[in-house]
Amino acid sequence: MEANELRELGQQFRVDSVRCAAAAKSGHPSSGMSAADLMAVLVANHYRFDFDNPKRAENDRLIFSKGHASTLLYAIFRATGAITDEELLQYRQFDSILEGHPTPRIPWVDVATGSLGQGLPLGVGIGIAAKQLDQLPSRVWVLHGDSEMAEGSVWEAFEHAAHYELDNLTAILDVNRLGQRGETMVGWNLDIYRDRAQAFGWHTIEIDGHDVDAIESAYAEAEQTKGRPTVVIAHTIKGKGVKAIENQPGWHGKALDNPDDAIEELGGLRNIHVDVARPETAEARSFPSGKLELPRYEVGDEVATRKAYGEALAALGSARGDVVAVDGEVSNSTFADLFAKAHPERYFEMYIAEQQMVAAAVGLQARGWNTFASTFAAFFSRAYDFIRMAAISRANLRLVGSHAGVSIGEDGPSQMALEDIASLRAVHSSTVLQPCDANQTAKLVAAMADTEGIVFLRTLRPNTPVIYAADEDFRVGGSRVIRTSDEDAITLVGSGVTVHEALKAADSLEEEGITARVIDVYSIKPIDAETLQAAAEATGRIVTIEDHYPEGGLGDAVLSALAEGGESARVLKLAVTEMPHSGKPDELLSAYGIDAEHIAAAARQLVAEPVTTS
Amino acid sequence: MEANELRELGQQFRVDSVRCAAAAKSGHPSSGMSAADLMAVLVANHYRFDFDNPKRAENDRLIFSKGHASTLLYAIFRATGAITDEELLQYRQFDSILEGHPTPRIPWVDVATGSLGQGLPLGVGIGIAAKQLDQLPSRVWVLHGDSEMAEGSVWEAFEHAAHYELDNLTAILDVNRLGQRGETMVGWNLDIYRDRAQAFGWHTIEIDGHDVDAIESAYAEAEQTKGRPTVVIAHTIKGKGVKAIENQPGWHGKALDNPDDAIEELGGLRNIHVDVARPETAEARSFPSGKLELPRYEVGDEVATRKAYGEALAALGSARGDVVAVDGEVSNSTFADLFAKAHPERYFEMYIAEQQMVAAAVGLQARGWNTFASTFAAFFSRAYDFIRMAAISRANLRLVGSHAGVSIGEDGPSQMALEDIASLRAVHSSTVLQPCDANQTAKLVAAMADTEGIVFLRTLRPNTPVIYAADEDFRVGGSRVIRTSDEDAITLVGSGVTVHEALKAADSLEEEGITARVIDVYSIKPIDAETLQAAAEATGRIVTIEDHYPEGGLGDAVLSALAEGGESARVLKLAVTEMPHSGKPDELLSAYGIDAEHIAAAARQLVAEPVTTS
Repeated sequence: MEANELRELGQQFRVDSVRCAAAAKSGHPSSGMSAADLMAVLVANHYRFDFDNPKRAENDRLIFSKGHASTLLYAIFRATGAITDEELLQYRQFDSILEGHPTPRIPWVDVATGSLGQGLPLGVGIGIAAKQLDQLPSRVWVLHGDSEMAEGSVWEAFEHAAHYELDNLTAILDVNRLGQRGETMVGWNLDIYRDRAQAFGWHTIEIDGHDVDAIESAYAEAEQTKGRPTVVIAHTIKGKGVKAIENQPGWHGKALDNPDDAIEELGGLRNIHVDVARPETAEARSFPSGKLELPRYEVGDEVATRKAYGEALAALGSARGDVVAVDGEVSNSTFADLFAKAHPERYFEMYIAEQQMVAAAVGLQARGWNTFASTFAAFFSRAYDFIRMAAISRANLRLVGSHAGVSIGEDGPSQMALEDIASLRAVHSSTVLQPCDANQTAKLVAAMADTEGIVFLRTLRPNTPVIYAADEDFRVGGSRVIRTSDEDAITLVGSGVTVHEALKAADSLEEEGITARVIDVYSIKPIDAETLQAAAEATGRIVTIEDHYPEGGLGDAVLSALAEGGESARVLKLAVTEMPHSGKPDELLSAYGIDAEHIAAAARQLVAEPVTTS
Repeated sequence: MEANELRELGQQFRVDSVRCAAAAKSGHPSSGMSAADLMAVLVANHYRFDFDNPKRAENDRLIFSKGHASTLLYAIFRATGAITDEELLQYRQFDSILEGHPTPRIPWVDVATGSLGQGLPLGVGIGIAAKQLDQLPSRVWVLHGDSEMAEGSVWEAFEHAAHYELDNLTAILDVNRLGQRGETMVGWNLDIYRDRAQAFGWHTIEIDGHDVDAIESAYAEAEQTKGRPTVVIAHTIKGKGVKAIENQPGWHGKALDNPDDAIEELGGLRNIHVDVARPETAEARSFPSGKLELPRYEVGDEVATRKAYGEALAALGSARGDVVAVDGEVSNSTFADLFAKAHPERYFEMYIAEQQMVAAAVGLQARGWNTFASTFAAFFSRAYDFIRMAAISRANLRLVGSHAGVSIGEDGPSQMALEDIASLRAVHSSTVLQPCDANQTAKLVAAMADTEGIVFLRTLRPNTPVIYAADEDFRVGGSRVIRTSDEDAITLVGSGVTVHEALKAADSLEEEGITARVIDVYSIKPIDAETLQAAAEATGRIVTIEDHYPEGGLGDAVLSALAEGGESARVLKLAVTEMPHSGKPDELLSAYGIDAEHIAAAARQLVAEPVTTS
């Protein structure tokens, strides 16, 4: 498309931004208007995308990191014919897929945005997939706001994109100077962004973001740049084209007061059609698959579940060519290094940058790669917003967190995950697993690869005894009744390390004539409500034991499962109620009241209580 | 101290690092050894600190951002006489305060570290407190690892430190090249760090980190640099001084194999005493205090609780000179801007950098400022690791999150907090509050300022009716029974927006002859277990309603409170179980089953169930 028509297309995008926000009576039209020319040149002359087959690996990807500029994205969709004008005007309505911020409910959107500073890290994941795994010439274009450059995650992405030499990645920085509340720290000093980007290893181009010729040249230069990513730093004007709001504070996130006047000022309604070029057909690289031979452990051996994770993942990688792993510079602790050694082409080191790590995993899975991301479970808290947004992206994400709870010992509370189960249970579409032995871990790792949504596996630092035979099966949503008899007076519910403490407690209780049922709740979400309800009915008394804080963990999950079934039982929750500190693992399990001795004491107390029949 | 003695002191720190790690059989001595000379020069010649009065505002602050190098910090404490040699050798033991990573259990430590990339953002908060609030010449020194430079939060700190012209802040970058698992992305290319730091507005000095004269000059230069912070970029060798481990991978986080040989190689045990200079006595600036005159709202008016937050905080700021606020570039949405306008000297804009925002609040409170931090509740998830670590820092932190739940409407799920209650309940020492009206909000905001630990207040985007008189009192841990009678057949438990829905449901149930008790659980943690237990006993049936996902929120908190009291009731949890999307607030409350109509239907269903006597 030529310059004149590109300018007209930019005006069309502005008009449509004003129109759909006016129809919705909300939205961020001024944020779309600043980037309208940048997007006009992109979609008309550079973007290669098959709207009929949005999942094609050869497609370019366009991420609106400034997701609030959704009016602009939807204006593009209208221009390409992907949606009708009528659909555009349903913007933000309950029955429309055109939400306030883009999500993959829209077929041509891969990842949800709207929490700022996430688009570029996601783009890094997609860029790695295209360049290193698929080995296709498809490009990733990220429309980026200037306000969101204050998010540290953006700089993680800058560093990783350069480290992985992602010359297929172009960031389009829309420097309109104004955030929601006022000016950014940098304002229109484009040179500051240039210096920062260059210091992080990027190629930089500064332009007037309303000069379509300059934009055209910049994109061509980006496409020609080899060995490093490019950022096009564009001086733009927020609300460009409508004098009443141009470069004015106070117009963020608002429909215009007089949309008809604005449309007239912008030259009125247009119906320019954009024929987005389709990419050439090409075959993405794939890796061989084979038979799954999970590691097998002898009952009675002592093996850390984190080690079993690494061994199982390496085996899974041999069986499935689509399995990929990332880790946050702790692969020798999480044992992801076993996968890295076995499948070096499918392992990507993310260094100490957990936000980028999770975002990379989301990007990789968006290109169809079955991605496992690991770090200490405590440090997934660093990426919690990315995990939350991954759920909105409808991502299939496998997260593996090691070093759970006080059982890690001497390193102290900063390294102990004690809120992870609660925070990850609360994520929509999540699955939360915590195996207690190596064989169980291996089976669950294999199951994770076929589980939809956000799947979290919590592994243990210390060795624990193998209690299950290698042939036993474990399914997401299941549990295991390890001990039971007809006379069970109480049920002990553990998960992970506390299963072993519960078993020891059951031994000592048995010596006193109290028979205890022991349930291993290795699947905390979904939880095996049926087995728990049956135990409640049979024993009337339950002790739950978790190496976690008391809120939102195993105990609460059990209570919720019983409530759903209308079961009433006397339930006593044992959990870590104090801020723990350094010490030996056994010392800490005891000090915080979750070892065998405390479990037995709690059981005795419950059994001694007068019976309340339900 | 002169160069020769400084070198000896550095060796002493190395020897002590080896010794205490050997005693503990764990720890990170090689990480302490790289920075030993850097710390020797600092504490002997530059650091000003009154060990007898560690909370003095005039004191310098030293933050070990690389908290795993704790052996070095404790070696310093021994050299200053703050701890004995015997205490040093109790490192990492259960009864010792010298934990694996430093925490404020140690009187001379202000903030916990151990999750990397947090020390510098915390230092920014302390630096702002010293320079802009206290207006004292005290300095902040941050010992920083090179691996942790990959964390985006570090770049948030770089940008904010320059923006606030923190010339009292010096980062000491210990570039030993090696992370836990291998080399960093940058290695020993110090110029890359220099270019990045300069691009972010810092003064930079590159040195050999084992040359005590160079270190001495660098610190002197940092002290003389005005208007911007300084980073001393030091080329160092991990494990320096012990050939067997020097610059070798595989020696991260391990005690040495032959500590006696290493000590001999380092020149043996030393007992150099360091007399740390005390700061000159000076008076920190303070702001006037006055009588608290909270805003008052008329019953029946419609006011958003987020607005009441802003108005109450402005009033609190007038009453208390120690109250300070920060916000993440959304102050016109959270209404923190009302405080900013009323008390501009005590408001600090943190832009879209939630990690830095929370870290700044932790740093500010560490200097005694009563700090409120606000953003959309959903975006506190971006700083979840910082909040978790703030609990380990024993921080008193007031977090205020607006835009809770689906009631925000059109903006869609990226802006809806639906996991916030679960994740924040799980933080140790936390308090979770959710007012439903403006007068209640004002009272709770005032109470927050006197509540210890991590206090989270969740505010609402839409207007809600004022239902409480301005003179009513509300306390942390309380609840309000809004409706009750002798014939209550069921209890409806709401919080925030669902209180109003529960009231409407109770109205319609009453028309059908079902009298419902309605409880406003505005304090979700601690929760008013007594009132809930009484309701369980009286009505036997409870419906909980929350604008939040079902896991770990209000419903689970109620179930847990009932279980603690041994109360059994039939409890039905209403919560948002699907991934929501854009729509009008009322439409969404209905679509996700938490409006009055769904509450009434659930109540009818429970009342119709056959009674189970408890």
